[in-house]
Amino acid sequence: MPPAKSTTSSAAAQKPFFVGLDVGGTNIKIGVVDDAGQTLAYQSLRTEQDKGAEDACVRMAAVVRRLLDENNINANDVVRAGIATPGPMDIAKGMILRPGNLPGWWDFPIRDRMSHHLGVPVTFANDANAAAYGEFWSGAGKQYHSLVLLTLGTGIGGGIVLNGKVWHGADDIAAELGHVSICYAGRRCNCGTIGCVEAYASATAVVKRTQEALRQGARSALAKGGKLDLSKVAKEDKCGHIFLAAKRGDAFARKIVADTIVYLATAMASLVNTFNPDMIVLYGGMTKAGSQLFGPLRKEVAKRCFKVGAHRCKIVPSKLGAHAVIGSALSAMHLLKGNA
Amino acid sequence: MPPAKSTTSSAAAQKPFFVGLDVGGTNIKIGVVDDAGQTLAYQSLRTEQDKGAEDACVRMAAVVRRLLDENNINANDVVRAGIATPGPMDIAKGMILRPGNLPGWWDFPIRDRMSHHLGVPVTFANDANAAAYGEFWSGAGKQYHSLVLLTLGTGIGGGIVLNGKVWHGADDIAAELGHVSICYAGRRCNCGTIGCVEAYASATAVVKRTQEALRQGARSALAKGGKLDLSKVAKEDKCGHIFLAAKRGDAFARKIVADTIVYLATAMASLVNTFNPDMIVLYGGMTKAGSQLFGPLRKEVAKRCFKVGAHRCKIVPSKLGAHAVIGSALSAMHLLKGNA
Repeated sequence: MPPAKSTTSSAAAQKPFFVGLDVGGTNIKIGVVDDAGQTLAYQSLRTEQDKGAEDACVRMAAVVRRLLDENNINANDVVRAGIATPGPMDIAKGMILRPGNLPGWWDFPIRDRMSHHLGVPVTFANDANAAAYGEFWSGAGKQYHSLVLLTLGTGIGGGIVLNGKVWHGADDIAAELGHVSICYAGRRCNCGTIGCVEAYASATAVVKRTQEALRQGARSALAKGGKLDLSKVAKEDKCGHIFLAAKRGDAFARKIVADTIVYLATAMASLVNTFNPDMIVLYGGMTKAGSQLFGPLRKEVAKRCFKVGAHRCKIVPSKLGAHAVIGSALSAMHLLKGNA
Repeated sequence: MPPAKSTTSSAAAQKPFFVGLDVGGTNIKIGVVDDAGQTLAYQSLRTEQDKGAEDACVRMAAVVRRLLDENNINANDVVRAGIATPGPMDIAKGMILRPGNLPGWWDFPIRDRMSHHLGVPVTFANDANAAAYGEFWSGAGKQYHSLVLLTLGTGIGGGIVLNGKVWHGADDIAAELGHVSICYAGRRCNCGTIGCVEAYASATAVVKRTQEALRQGARSALAKGGKLDLSKVAKEDKCGHIFLAAKRGDAFARKIVADTIVYLATAMASLVNTFNPDMIVLYGGMTKAGSQLFGPLRKEVAKRCFKVGAHRCKIVPSKLGAHAVIGSALSAMHLLKGNA
């Protein structure tokens, strides 16, 4: 059993304080929490990764100092920070390895450099794991014992929290849930293998499947010159645009969305049968589709796994959203307290 | 981190003692272990399930008493027993629910009845979980921290041990690993859904796929009148017979075996990417195929998951085999010691 979680939030901030940092390819998010896990300050800044990793560390430290100042927090009361990045990483050495979306930052000892700039010990985590941890302690999973988190973005990431602890695996590379297979003879995935759910149902894959079908002559308002012409939409909005077309009744887009739900549900049903978790939390841009996604997804998962497990497992959107960064801070806090 | 495991085995049996019971559709296995986890006595008896569950409890208790007698163990030094059965079950209530292979025993309170007959507290576990626990503490996984076990028999069962603890899930139905999907639009499974690895790669499914293909006219020594004519083989030996035909060079049988390996590897690769475990242990009749199974299976799994995870994860046969029953005894022992 995990330690009891605080469910009340007190107005008075409690010493000591913890800083969370979440480094993505486009944005860095920074949060400060108090000893009760309450978020006191939050800020997002551009990663500007072309300036390099060391420069980003300096800028992150400056933002942290300003956030503390603005909130009248004495820097000496900050005892620890947590930093999360995309994998692959070497958790033990505190190093980013070779993440595809941070090309200039490879093999950078980000944990120790941040510790140097902040003057406190820093813990290091995979971004999806940290988000799962945050949801467990302060978000959608606050009242529960186990959850699985899926990030539906450019790729599909995952985090697994069992009885209050993140399951990291023997080499800290567990929970690569985008690479759960949904077809033994399926689509080729960026990871080099075949059939991974990421190759079917990440935002990127949804757009790719759509474009393939349009090239093959599918009739849709998404086709060039159509009312919802996909070619005119910014890259990061394309997936949402396809969901919108489906909502507006475009038959082709509806099929794309329906297929996406089958693919996601297949992987999620496997996870329900594997973990019998209290909850699966979905995180990322695709969840903006709301009930258009969650309604049919819940039904399809229930069709594909054991009844008891399906009945147990709530399928919900992330509650923290952009504030998932506090997972890093909470992780640092609980590590200090011996819970993590 | 799990408690340190004993790796030496002392000749002198150490008090107190623990009894393990493993109830299957055909056989019941009984084992006695000492406080160091050493197996002191083992016996198998027929389930004779038509006589009913209560009768089996009486017979099990009689065998336990005889085993203790024969090994000069004072019954008072037995402090606890563990019993394992196929699911579905209600662990909290200690009840068998409705397992397909124990049709006359439904809704039987087996934990409390065995406790009554043995005069000691009894713990209750799913058979595959107990086998996984046994492998972890005393079998193939003795030197490791995490393992996933798959039973390849009539169906495919599973057990997950993470840092010395079985992961049971919110309703004690986790690790239904036979129902990890390998195809979103695949074969129909006995569980009522589609694409489960059990529907492709259990011993039953291997025979079924073979028979389907033979009916459709596949040419093989396994066809009626052929050298290895499958129709003449006892039901429980058919799968082994197909592996044998493949070994002898029958092209059709080789394809069936090769496909089976792809199916198993797909599910196992998903498990490696999910858990990054130290080990996957395979248990059950199909593992008798030895290197014919394990060689190509290891290669196929490595092709289908992340390199680091594949490199880490040993894929090995069960070491305890029929003695997996001691997993139940060890589970009872560790529960008493607060480790389970």
